Amino acid sequence: MQIAIPLFDRFTALDAIGPYQVLSGVPGAQVRFLGPEVGPVRADNRMLTLLAGERWEDLPEPDVLVVPGGVGTRMLLRDERLLDWVRGAHESSRYTTSVCTGALVLAAAGVLDDLEATTHWMERELLGELGARPTPRRVVEQGKVITAAGVSAGIDMALRLVELLTGPEVAQAIQLGIEYDPQPPFDSGSPEKASAETVELVRAVMGQLEVEAETDAATAG
Amino acid sequence: MQIAIPLFDRFTALDAIGPYQVLSGVPGAQVRFLGPEVGPVRADNRMLTLLAGERWEDLPEPDVLVVPGGVGTRMLLRDERLLDWVRGAHESSRYTTSVCTGALVLAAAGVLDDLEATTHWMERELLGELGARPTPRRVVEQGKVITAAGVSAGIDMALRLVELLTGPEVAQAIQLGIEYDPQPPFDSGSPEKASAETVELVRAVMGQLEVEAETDAATAG
Repeated sequence: MQIAIPLFDRFTALDAIGPYQVLSGVPGAQVRFLGPEVGPVRADNRMLTLLAGERWEDLPEPDVLVVPGGVGTRMLLRDERLLDWVRGAHESSRYTTSVCTGALVLAAAGVLDDLEATTHWMERELLGELGARPTPRRVVEQGKVITAAGVSAGIDMALRLVELLTGPEVAQAIQLGIEYDPQPPFDSGSPEKASAETVELVRAVMGQLEVEAETDAATAG
Repeated sequence: MQIAIPLFDRFTALDAIGPYQVLSGVPGAQVRFLGPEVGPVRADNRMLTLLAGERWEDLPEPDVLVVPGGVGTRMLLRDERLLDWVRGAHESSRYTTSVCTGALVLAAAGVLDDLEATTHWMERELLGELGARPTPRRVVEQGKVITAAGVSAGIDMALRLVELLTGPEVAQAIQLGIEYDPQPPFDSGSPEKASAETVELVRAVMGQLEVEAETDAATAG
């Protein structure tokens, strides 16, 4: 089973690595990180670099597609090269999935037209503008299309995906293998649960990151 | 604030990326991935490669040390070059931490002598043999030394660490930023909660991975 995780400049690392850690435990599964080119791909905060061993097009028919998010997705919404690859991969995939703002890429490719879908809570409105029906659920299944909410939601989505692919026994074993028995020290993991001050703080900080990314991209060409 | 995450051959990716994703959100923090040499470092399952921008010794006095785990830790327990660096970093660190079997490395360096500590549930016995007092808690704080249980526990540990470093407001904002409102589809994330069959399955698979890693290491050198 071939699992494609496309990388791109300014992806969010945990969006990709959470599902990778879960899915790589499926017997016979091979997770492949694909880049715009073979070589280094830098994460959103510039502190982490992954190596893409292949280009997006090198895996045209993956069994499973997992599109991560990150501020870099904004630059992908008009990247016909990536969107064409996504459309092609989706045609033959068993499952087409996204984490966080990876849903914006699926939507821009037309995969989410008129489907319920989720994304990072700050981007629900944009997801709707791109043709999906945004919902605030953490994992949204619509046939073979599965979207996960922000960043860490990819872990929950991937465990459900393993259940769909191979049954609950393997999914539960993987959960135990990564000791996923979450005990967050706070309960502020969604805008419905966090304080208004926390929501405002995150909006301010993440808005600033987007401005920086767009300025960088404009400067770079 | 300088945060060091040492990488090594056959590390477990989520052990490193979970805390990185949380800690990189702290204002002014710089997370630095350090390798045995500058260049690519491959994860335990050979499906992922990170780039280390610096060598371990290039950051001798980090403010925070986060040692990830993975089957590769077995080869580190007698690696005096790494252990010396860990001892030196621990001398001046504000916090010395580990995720999963990264605790075995801290123990081998003498950092956990007579301290309570946690690790991946399969390795509690070995952690005791290395001089620590193993406990089954998910996050164990002993002064400036904090250990986390297997793999995904690094996310919980890192949120607590952010609270200690900068207060609960920032920690809660980061939790909301990564939408960490976990909703695993099963409740088998610890050996106390999983079925006996699941525990046995994981023991068998992970035992096999360790044998493969040790065979590879023996062949390679």
